[in-house]
Amino acid sequence: MTAILDTIESPRDLKGLTQRELAQLAGELREKIIAVCSKNGGHLAPSLGVVELTLALHRVFDSPTDKIIWDVGHQAYAHKLLTGRRDQFATLRTLGGISGFPKRCESPHDAFDTGHTSTSISAALGFAVARDLQGERNKVVAVIGDGSMTGGLAYEGLNHAGHLNKDLVVVLNDNEMSIAENVGALSNFLNRTVTSEFVHTMKKDLEGFLGGLDRIGRGVLKVAKRAEESLKGLFTPGMLFEAFGFEYIGPIDGHDIGRLMETFEKVKRFDDAVLIHVLTKKGKGYRPAEEKPALFHGVGPFEVETGKVIKGKGGAASYTGVFGEAIRKIAVEDERVIALTAAMPDGTGLTPFATDYPTRFFDVGIAEQHGVTFAAGLAAEGYRPVFAVYSSFLQRAYDQVFHDVCLQNLPVTFAIDRAGVVGSDGPTHHGLFDLAYLRHLPNMVVMAPKDENELQHLLLTAIEHDGPAAVRYPRGNGYGVSLDQTCSVLPIGKGEILREGLDGALLAIGSTVYPAREAAEALAAEGIDLAVVNARFVKPLDRDLILSLARTTGRLITVEENVIQGGFGTAVLELLEEEGIEGVTVLRLGYPDRYVEQGEQHELRAQYGLDAPGITARVRTFMKR
Amino acid sequence: MTAILDTIESPRDLKGLTQRELAQLAGELREKIIAVCSKNGGHLAPSLGVVELTLALHRVFDSPTDKIIWDVGHQAYAHKLLTGRRDQFATLRTLGGISGFPKRCESPHDAFDTGHTSTSISAALGFAVARDLQGERNKVVAVIGDGSMTGGLAYEGLNHAGHLNKDLVVVLNDNEMSIAENVGALSNFLNRTVTSEFVHTMKKDLEGFLGGLDRIGRGVLKVAKRAEESLKGLFTPGMLFEAFGFEYIGPIDGHDIGRLMETFEKVKRFDDAVLIHVLTKKGKGYRPAEEKPALFHGVGPFEVETGKVIKGKGGAASYTGVFGEAIRKIAVEDERVIALTAAMPDGTGLTPFATDYPTRFFDVGIAEQHGVTFAAGLAAEGYRPVFAVYSSFLQRAYDQVFHDVCLQNLPVTFAIDRAGVVGSDGPTHHGLFDLAYLRHLPNMVVMAPKDENELQHLLLTAIEHDGPAAVRYPRGNGYGVSLDQTCSVLPIGKGEILREGLDGALLAIGSTVYPAREAAEALAAEGIDLAVVNARFVKPLDRDLILSLARTTGRLITVEENVIQGGFGTAVLELLEEEGIEGVTVLRLGYPDRYVEQGEQHELRAQYGLDAPGITARVRTFMKR
Ligand SMILES: [Mg+2]
Ligand SMILES: [Mg+2]
Repeated sequence: MTAILDTIESPRDLKGLTQRELAQLAGELREKIIAVCSKNGGHLAPSLGVVELTLALHRVFDSPTDKIIWDVGHQAYAHKLLTGRRDQFATLRTLGGISGFPKRCESPHDAFDTGHTSTSISAALGFAVARDLQGERNKVVAVIGDGSMTGGLAYEGLNHAGHLNKDLVVVLNDNEMSIAENVGALSNFLNRTVTSEFVHTMKKDLEGFLGGLDRIGRGVLKVAKRAEESLKGLFTPGMLFEAFGFEYIGPIDGHDIGRLMETFEKVKRFDDAVLIHVLTKKGKGYRPAEEKPALFHGVGPFEVETGKVIKGKGGAASYTGVFGEAIRKIAVEDERVIALTAAMPDGTGLTPFATDYPTRFFDVGIAEQHGVTFAAGLAAEGYRPVFAVYSSFLQRAYDQVFHDVCLQNLPVTFAIDRAGVVGSDGPTHHGLFDLAYLRHLPNMVVMAPKDENELQHLLLTAIEHDGPAAVRYPRGNGYGVSLDQTCSVLPIGKGEILREGLDGALLAIGSTVYPAREAAEALAAEGIDLAVVNARFVKPLDRDLILSLARTTGRLITVEENVIQGGFGTAVLELLEEEGIEGVTVLRLGYPDRYVEQGEQHELRAQYGLDAPGITARVRTFMKR
Repeated sequence: MTAILDTIESPRDLKGLTQRELAQLAGELREKIIAVCSKNGGHLAPSLGVVELTLALHRVFDSPTDKIIWDVGHQAYAHKLLTGRRDQFATLRTLGGISGFPKRCESPHDAFDTGHTSTSISAALGFAVARDLQGERNKVVAVIGDGSMTGGLAYEGLNHAGHLNKDLVVVLNDNEMSIAENVGALSNFLNRTVTSEFVHTMKKDLEGFLGGLDRIGRGVLKVAKRAEESLKGLFTPGMLFEAFGFEYIGPIDGHDIGRLMETFEKVKRFDDAVLIHVLTKKGKGYRPAEEKPALFHGVGPFEVETGKVIKGKGGAASYTGVFGEAIRKIAVEDERVIALTAAMPDGTGLTPFATDYPTRFFDVGIAEQHGVTFAAGLAAEGYRPVFAVYSSFLQRAYDQVFHDVCLQNLPVTFAIDRAGVVGSDGPTHHGLFDLAYLRHLPNMVVMAPKDENELQHLLLTAIEHDGPAAVRYPRGNGYGVSLDQTCSVLPIGKGEILREGLDGALLAIGSTVYPAREAAEALAAEGIDLAVVNARFVKPLDRDLILSLARTTGRLITVEENVIQGGFGTAVLELLEEEGIEGVTVLRLGYPDRYVEQGEQHELRAQYGLDAPGITARVRTFMKR
């Protein structure tokens, strides 16, 4: 059934295919993508939406000489299948397998690594400038979704690219949604389309009108000329992009290979900055994904025939779900609570809150910077905004956290989901840096719950705290512990002793607390008697508790799901130095100083020695030292 | 001569003034601003440009009930003078004095702290949403410059604000420049103004034309209606903002108080999002500043009569200047070198490079995120981009450094100016976090030169390094050391012993190396014999050297101009833990866990014990421990 795909070793092999064969190949690509995603999970709907677009790009342009840069990159599955990775495609998103995103180290056809949104125009401009400096003539193409276009970085890139007017192609892949519904002016622009008949009629009439203006003289004629130029784009969504200095073409049907090829052929001869507006359907060609594009945006394993998502081991509620319920509960009592998301109402668990409190819920679009500063404004007026955001995406607003929230000591809560390793999305999406990049900011309180029940209490603690506070928690299910009906404020900077012990103390934070306790039990059976602390707070630390354990046991082991530089364990080292405590031996466990690859969370935790057996083994060695 | 100003205790006192009195007050404000800036230095030109605007805002709106949010905030001097801070104004920007930026802690009239660009629309939207939730009726006004409008955050804010269409006033203060010339599409928009006569004529003609279209039927009529609506803005710079969902008014003369008051009075009755486009002249009313607005953007002390800038103690070249010469020198030999700035060609020392290598120089506008990702694209194609940027502004691109540069291990050099305390600009501008926020990123090399000569060598070392590298250096003059004619590559991760000693080792980085050596000499006279190391590298550390000194002396003192959490000293603690070194006593000197106030660099270093006497005193105490 993949008769043609099996013959494609590189994009060159597309050149000889007829349109009919390309259409068949589109079907084969979809089949393959659906089959692999149904097993491995993945970004199915975005990738299905761009199959024809990918074929047309690779048919017309000459990758890797021509550069194709996929914004976000989760739509690049067909690209991967056509560029020599067909046989590895079954390993998509698995440990040691090929990435779900473009990776320069995987293929010369992956011009630029992506994963976060809105980077492609800026990067493509870099490629275009480099080409011109080198006197080369290759084309550079950025493919960016309508959602990604709402990020400020895309605007900055458009602005500079239009200004330089380099030979650069931006393909705007408009599927009228990013992950959730789009926000803001840009989507208004894109929805302004009128049928081309009307445009045609209007233009003809207008030409006559403008002709008649001649008599009014040169000044008005110049104005009129501009009117004509502007009107050309005015009735299409091109207005904005032409204003930015781009030639605008479109909108065109993104599932019509012939039309796409024709357009790309034409554009290949241009040497200006041009934006091609392509309309696609997310999930195209697989009915369940077409019907539920948000569900199939990034999906776990599912049954191909029915589209039924296969439930994991199930049972325990997810941290995300518990957060969503907790904030709803807290909002009943506290009218100051406002919830914010950057285009992730489902992913962050805020959809139920949005339903209950539509006036207290804001989806700011893919715009983390704005989300944080907007929250600061709300907080300055007495509200208690909670920005629910993935750890790796909050990185995009580091300066706004610094400048708009912490500097003014404003009570904004950061509910940081996907902290720690996230699994198959890999290094762009792991949340392994937040403890380090938040801890050094003055006024910030940084905490992490040991389980999903504690998450509720820490969320309330953060909201009630009269300053900035972050609660970080992992992707995936909790432990199935029972959930207290009422949230309580826990004392800031106070940890919890889970186990007494005399030989040393395991200081664990967040998702590592349960495995650390398990490790301690295993070691107890070997005669090593360790205290176990649920630290709860990375900042401020529970100084008294940690110092007392340092003094009584002489050995501290810190455990965290964060990069080892500058995180929780480092904070403990700093505390000992500040207090001038001597003679304490410390071992810090965390992720090393490199980007962590993709893999299931449990696989990565095992590989990096952060599950119970790993902690046990490393602590055993340490205790022999 | 400040007869009226002396009677103004709060904006309420403006309400009774005639237009003639307001005009006189404008003169008095200018006089006061010029007088104080001539002594203390400051953002003279931006503040002079908005005197009438400030008067009109405070005359029409009722601060602090109505909220005025100043983007960046360096133009708020007249605002400060009118809101109860006339008598403290002489302390502007000095240690313990009033800030050069709005500060909530200073006055209820300062609605929101600013300092970095492009935050005001997002913050104002937060205020507007809060007001509506509370059922209040106050107005919210954001005042933003054309330069700030090029930042992605401003776009994100506009996009969301237009979407929500809250009662919100954005005043676009268009002086056709930010600090340097503006970049990109937005400035094209703003320059599209045609005289209002033409617009009027054109509109009248068009109305007739559109009226005649009736016969074509309803469909075309709808299109025509849109044409009319769009044309309304088309010939003014309002097109863009109307498309974003804002009502557009302007452009109006920003020095015509009557016209401004009239406009604000009208807008006060609106309850939609409205943008008022105001044209001002930077430096207005002080000829030297009008003639050299870039020089007088942020200026040191000067002679009022001549506008001649008073040279400091002079002599030694500035780090900025040495950087500018060094990159020019390196670029002769290495064609791969490209220099980038985010709207700071003068401030970063790149103007000479731009003159010599116009095709290899890029001013990306106030768009640090784009600058970094653009650089990553250039690096992916074999170039060696050098992004010259202030430490506190690079914070705005933390995720792009993470995601686009470090993750792909691309050879981008970050030339980080204004690292450490910067002086009178205060906490928003101090560069006290870069060692912490860069050090935990995989693949990043982080270095700092001990003096201006070493800066040259480290710059070449960074450029030659086949991966990301940061060189950070302070604001201000170097030591006047002689400058080697040739730049050399220094070994990565190797420090330099400046003094041998047996009682302990002072490990210093960057600007603290000379004071640390001085401290060691002072202590030697007291019989305390300390080694002194110029660490050069914060990452990777010179492990062998540090470990050897730890073993031989047993005492390490780290000194850095960075926040104490997660910086250089912390890296040393981590190294000792990783190597399992016991029995070493460490003292880390740096800035504490809070925002550092404004003041001269030497004052702040003295206050925080980071000058030679401070280091001497603290090390003396430590050595007695
Ligand atoms: Mg989309
Ligand atoms: Mg300006």
